[in-house]
Amino acid sequence: MNDLRAVKTVAIIGAGLIGAGWATIFVNAGMNIRVYDQSSEILGRLKDAVAYNLKEMAKFGLAETVTLPSGIIEICSSIEDAVLGADYVQESVLETADVKREVSKAIDVAIAPGVFVGSSSSGIPASQFTEKLKNRDRFYVVHPVNPPHLIPVVEIVPAPWSDPAAIPALRSFMEKIGRKPVVLSNEIEGFILNRLQGALLNEAWSLFSEGYATTADIDRTISEGLGLRWSFMGPFETIDLNAPGGITDYAARLGELYHGMARSRTEPKRWSQEAISKAASEMQNRFADTSSGSRLRARDARLMALLAHKAQVHNSD
Amino acid sequence: MNDLRAVKTVAIIGAGLIGAGWATIFVNAGMNIRVYDQSSEILGRLKDAVAYNLKEMAKFGLAETVTLPSGIIEICSSIEDAVLGADYVQESVLETADVKREVSKAIDVAIAPGVFVGSSSSGIPASQFTEKLKNRDRFYVVHPVNPPHLIPVVEIVPAPWSDPAAIPALRSFMEKIGRKPVVLSNEIEGFILNRLQGALLNEAWSLFSEGYATTADIDRTISEGLGLRWSFMGPFETIDLNAPGGITDYAARLGELYHGMARSRTEPKRWSQEAISKAASEMQNRFADTSSGSRLRARDARLMALLAHKAQVHNSD
Repeated sequence: MNDLRAVKTVAIIGAGLIGAGWATIFVNAGMNIRVYDQSSEILGRLKDAVAYNLKEMAKFGLAETVTLPSGIIEICSSIEDAVLGADYVQESVLETADVKREVSKAIDVAIAPGVFVGSSSSGIPASQFTEKLKNRDRFYVVHPVNPPHLIPVVEIVPAPWSDPAAIPALRSFMEKIGRKPVVLSNEIEGFILNRLQGALLNEAWSLFSEGYATTADIDRTISEGLGLRWSFMGPFETIDLNAPGGITDYAARLGELYHGMARSRTEPKRWSQEAISKAASEMQNRFADTSSGSRLRARDARLMALLAHKAQVHNSD
Repeated sequence: MNDLRAVKTVAIIGAGLIGAGWATIFVNAGMNIRVYDQSSEILGRLKDAVAYNLKEMAKFGLAETVTLPSGIIEICSSIEDAVLGADYVQESVLETADVKREVSKAIDVAIAPGVFVGSSSSGIPASQFTEKLKNRDRFYVVHPVNPPHLIPVVEIVPAPWSDPAAIPALRSFMEKIGRKPVVLSNEIEGFILNRLQGALLNEAWSLFSEGYATTADIDRTISEGLGLRWSFMGPFETIDLNAPGGITDYAARLGELYHGMARSRTEPKRWSQEAISKAASEMQNRFADTSSGSRLRARDARLMALLAHKAQVHNSD
């Protein structure tokens, strides 16, 4: 059996934004990668994308390599070719069960014994596209957040037939390449991260639709409020510190209030077209002077500065 | 009529953790404060608490005064005495409607014409404790987050009888003292911030109760994932950047997924005692070596470092 502790070569299947992020992570961790994408255009841009990511990260002390060592990225002509000799496979193709099923099948017939496959699926559980595979026990969801090389968390989600014994090894492997893994015991729609985001978004859309506040003000309750503590401690740790007697005391004091809020939202409505148009128009006014490209670059620079800040604060603790 | 642009003296009614945080904010903004608390013990500690806060903030460049100018804090013997000569009143007494009603009544009879009163109420709307007041049009909720001097957001929530014309002045006043105000058009249980926190917490408790992951792993999806972007951009701005065509495109792609998640939670359960006990025991294991006092100090140091970091990054944008 393969040992994830000895991974030297990783196959990247699908080389768009997510695949390029993963490629950046593995190259930054000193591994060789073999990349395939069905689009030769995307494939042609991959090395430049990784080089750009590493150069930007180096400005914040988050990468050591600023130039790509030659031969570290191998562009491949098929899934089979990419998977050949790989010790681990990360798949990041289009988010539909059909496409993932087809690609997973091609990976399945080509992987060496003991090689694990992680899918970047952000919401579709692996059971919807790995059931009929020969090596289905070695397929997992390993879900990153966009942009993958700048947000540390990954969700590891086993299918009902995934080998549970391999989970600790997968967790360690993700830690080794600088990720902060989260492990789910079972599949659930949206996994954990997008369920938490969804719960908050659904409430935010309801409040906005009902006219309580603008999108800018609702945003500010997070970016100048809840998001500050949450950038270094999760919601359970936060409430554990928000009552003298810890989480039990907090639940006793405020559980009923939060239950009341949940009871007020038992007939969930879709995000309405009217609210979406109004929000889009508010966004246009807020960011009238800035292209989305420069906003994305600004976001990524903020994320890199934050990661550097967190590393520094953590080390001086 | 009073002009919030000319506020020089602020009355602080209730001087516990929240009141001391407000006192720190107003002193740091160069204002004089007059403080009353029914507990002489709490009142006796106030100057030391403010001095400690300012000294800690100064280490991160967040305060200029490290010693309290004499006479800037006046300890008062009654609500009437504290409110005398004050240009603005911030009330932070116990969070029950009865106590707030009684205290608001004493403030009501003592305030000068044109003086506004903000209540730190974190969930009880002003209409539940200001209805019968003579000057009820000048009472609002002005809700900070704990710790008030380290989390910039405040929620301004009018009662049905509050003067809407004063809202822009209140917003500017809060900005002037370094806060990031959010304005609600109407009262709603939990306001915005705690409704968003509640939505996320309710989902987190459901996932934990159903055994999908540990509290540590659920926490990590926020502290190493969603919380990073949220520390500088809100949920609407985040999704606006997460689809090529902006927020409208994002809603079209993912609205149905998030609606599905909401539909799976239409029978909200209370946070169960069993789950609370299990979470408390996980917390005890995670933080076995650290007292809650030192955890709180570490949290506040992280918050101050983050505020300094945000100010620096923002200035170099």
